[in-house]
Amino acid sequence: MFVKNCWYVAGWDYDLPQGKVLARTIIDRQLALYRKQDGGVVAIEDRCCHRHAALHLGQIEGDCIRCMYHGLKFDPSGRCVDIPGQDRISPKAVIRSYPVVERDNWIWVWMGDPALADPNLIPFSVGPGDPDWDMRPSSLVFDADYRLVVDNLLDFSHITYVHRKTFGGEQFSDGLPKITKLDRGFRVERWLRNAPALVFIEHIMTGRYDMLVDYSVLMPCVFVMRFKIFAAGTATEGPSNGQLLLDTWTCQSVVPATADQCVYYFSWGASKETATPEIGDLLYAGINKAFLEDKEMIEAQHRNIKLQPDLPMIGIAHDAAVNQMRILMNRFIEAESAGIAAE
Amino acid sequence: MFVKNCWYVAGWDYDLPQGKVLARTIIDRQLALYRKQDGGVVAIEDRCCHRHAALHLGQIEGDCIRCMYHGLKFDPSGRCVDIPGQDRISPKAVIRSYPVVERDNWIWVWMGDPALADPNLIPFSVGPGDPDWDMRPSSLVFDADYRLVVDNLLDFSHITYVHRKTFGGEQFSDGLPKITKLDRGFRVERWLRNAPALVFIEHIMTGRYDMLVDYSVLMPCVFVMRFKIFAAGTATEGPSNGQLLLDTWTCQSVVPATADQCVYYFSWGASKETATPEIGDLLYAGINKAFLEDKEMIEAQHRNIKLQPDLPMIGIAHDAAVNQMRILMNRFIEAESAGIAAE
Amino acid sequence: MFVKNCWYVAGWDYDLPQGKVLARTIIDRQLALYRKQDGGVVAIEDRCCHRHAALHLGQIEGDCIRCMYHGLKFDPSGRCVDIPGQDRISPKAVIRSYPVVERDNWIWVWMGDPALADPNLIPFSVGPGDPDWDMRPSSLVFDADYRLVVDNLLDFSHITYVHRKTFGGEQFSDGLPKITKLDRGFRVERWLRNAPALVFIEHIMTGRYDMLVDYSVLMPCVFVMRFKIFAAGTATEGPSNGQLLLDTWTCQSVVPATADQCVYYFSWGASKETATPEIGDLLYAGINKAFLEDKEMIEAQHRNIKLQPDLPMIGIAHDAAVNQMRILMNRFIEAESAGIAAE
Repeated sequence: MFVKNCWYVAGWDYDLPQGKVLARTIIDRQLALYRKQDGGVVAIEDRCCHRHAALHLGQIEGDCIRCMYHGLKFDPSGRCVDIPGQDRISPKAVIRSYPVVERDNWIWVWMGDPALADPNLIPFSVGPGDPDWDMRPSSLVFDADYRLVVDNLLDFSHITYVHRKTFGGEQFSDGLPKITKLDRGFRVERWLRNAPALVFIEHIMTGRYDMLVDYSVLMPCVFVMRFKIFAAGTATEGPSNGQLLLDTWTCQSVVPATADQCVYYFSWGASKETATPEIGDLLYAGINKAFLEDKEMIEAQHRNIKLQPDLPMIGIAHDAAVNQMRILMNRFIEAESAGIAAE
Repeated sequence: MFVKNCWYVAGWDYDLPQGKVLARTIIDRQLALYRKQDGGVVAIEDRCCHRHAALHLGQIEGDCIRCMYHGLKFDPSGRCVDIPGQDRISPKAVIRSYPVVERDNWIWVWMGDPALADPNLIPFSVGPGDPDWDMRPSSLVFDADYRLVVDNLLDFSHITYVHRKTFGGEQFSDGLPKITKLDRGFRVERWLRNAPALVFIEHIMTGRYDMLVDYSVLMPCVFVMRFKIFAAGTATEGPSNGQLLLDTWTCQSVVPATADQCVYYFSWGASKETATPEIGDLLYAGINKAFLEDKEMIEAQHRNIKLQPDLPMIGIAHDAAVNQMRILMNRFIEAESAGIAAE
Repeated sequence: MFVKNCWYVAGWDYDLPQGKVLARTIIDRQLALYRKQDGGVVAIEDRCCHRHAALHLGQIEGDCIRCMYHGLKFDPSGRCVDIPGQDRISPKAVIRSYPVVERDNWIWVWMGDPALADPNLIPFSVGPGDPDWDMRPSSLVFDADYRLVVDNLLDFSHITYVHRKTFGGEQFSDGLPKITKLDRGFRVERWLRNAPALVFIEHIMTGRYDMLVDYSVLMPCVFVMRFKIFAAGTATEGPSNGQLLLDTWTCQSVVPATADQCVYYFSWGASKETATPEIGDLLYAGINKAFLEDKEMIEAQHRNIKLQPDLPMIGIAHDAAVNQMRILMNRFIEAESAGIAAE
């Protein structure tokens, strides 16, 4: 159920200060992460090759980490470089090390074949460190199959219902959005016309607006959306020249820990031109509240599916992108298990 | 391990006020219950046919319920009547609806073949709403196989031991009660003669008494008992003409949620002729305390059985009704799985 | 994974005062323990033969115990001697009774064939009741395979790492100790020369010392160690005639409850000649703190092993005693399952 040959977010960069060893579970694998002296991140198996002690309980020594059970020391490549009580070190004394890239304040880890770890496959995103945007990062744990969260993101008709008290957006469940196939995912576009602003900012944006929703969902689980609010009637389709009142990015990553748990990293923020501190606070509070609504709904859905996994699901028109993404992901997973790269 | 073709108690009527959606698990099935505009109760599968979201998170609209994930709306029969974003509704877009009857302040749900849902099969009971009786309702969750609670109710010899501090009743474990086969269960009768009153009322009933215990246990899990206290030496067997000091009903239902959990709904109360507010309080407190004693014993028994399920059990004389009820229940279960009605 | 024909510690004697019924799980078996009128301990199956109710909820009557569900009474041999409601008692109405010996303040229970329960197999230990030693008892629960704790005790190189803040002892991971095979285990000896005292007593023993570590680990899980501190340069190998500053015993037993949990009973104390109240307090606090360090490390190791049980382990020189003990234990376990005594 997991794609291996892809970059997964292991956390925000601020989750991993120098000197800390961080434990993470990604696609059923236990990782320990720490920073080298130059700040570069090492991601290794959280399991000493000797007796399987947890390396997140270890001690950083220079660029290496020492298992604090019996003292084996590993370099960033995972090679054991010291075994107390003996001089010779078996070449088998190696743990797995994973390719890591830090970009846009996310720590990206490649869980598959290291030879295929192409940084160009890291999706575009806008991080909290970007000087042009007031991005605020957050995270939540969902006790659910990550694919249910991916489904959720690919069908915004749920906004009308799940988020009726936070976002509102009755138009989301009306017509269908425009869906475009991408190399490793889908782009979804939709205009909301002459609509009230999202519920959580209605008290400061009291009129009616044109709103652009334009997002991509990329394998396996990255969501990046441009959301813009224009004065009603001023914005045209395509590269907009309307009266732009609020311009935002939200960047989200849903990272499968196990079959039954995933971690959701997300940020939302406005451009410095259109942001105010109040808007920043509202976006941050709004997305956190809304994602707790998703969490409640999706965790209950996950429990239902676990209880009777073989019951059929009845398809509806809004499932289009959801279904296409599942097909795409399954094609990648099957290609990986067959040992060939998916097209 | 569950009989399907029978009425199960899904709760007290006061558990389900107008406007609330109640989640219940009965014999491993998830139900959502709510009231129609006329107050009638709807019991449907707690699982939207679209993506299996939980309908207990839904919104009541008139007599219908709307799934608050993607907005599908279902009528009381379980038929989908609205799918946002599309006009055509597949005839497959249906969820299961269960027959419901409200009677004696209990909400009864039929879990088997709806064509067999005969309200005449609902056992007699006396509800808290009965004007002639001061019944007080309560409930407890037992983390145990419901059949262990049924066993418990069919063998009152346990009262002498489990409830020695609350009920007392040394005579319960002496001789054997009279057991009569009923269509769907057993009737158990016993007289306690010249005995002290139950421990929890001994401070107000200080003498010695004749007491009638007369109860039925009906498939799968309903217990209804008439319990009367007479002045010692005044009461004869059969329709009694003795000096009646306290006349009570207790109505109980043990509802299997899963193989390892059941919900116990119960009430106890005296006739208005023999009750006082103090007696009502004592009966209520007494039964709640006693059933916590049962809960501790039965949950430990359940854990023991789970740890070594294949160990033999040594039968004793007091098991007669227990064993006969198991045979009866197994006959029903086998008949159901064979597709025929049990005799 | 468990040896049956051996004595297991079921607790400290003070865990079982007269009148109490104690529930214990040892090698996946549930036991109930209580004291007879003469103080002798009875250990029986915690499961009534009737309906498998838990006997630790029972009532002690003389030397017998009565199940407080339906009143069956069992004598110390496990034979049922009373069944309420009937005169005849089936000879099958028997529960298992386990041989028990109290020695050195430990309650020892034999879990295997009672005919083989030889008290001479109880390992030597020094109990808190010994007038010559200031032993202080304690216990901890580890959510781990007990064999991981046995491993831990057989390889003191972990002290350098796991206990660097409590014990210290850099020399432990340097060379290898002397290991001697015993009938049912191994003896491990090591001298630390001209070393600082253990961290937790460094403030009162500020110089450098010679220290003797001399312990046995016996099947399945008993650890008894003599630990002595001498003035540096005064102590010779063998029966020492050096300047003895501190002379201690520590007696420990790791008792498997299930495959995933064990109970660790331990004591540490100095001889009355070398002890002071302050030393006694420091030893007690030191061992309790250190074993919480072990607990954290071993529980994480256990979780890792459970997640990927088939991964290989890379051996190191310090594993010698660990590996030999596993071989010995497996030989006993295989011999037991083959029905013959292990050599």
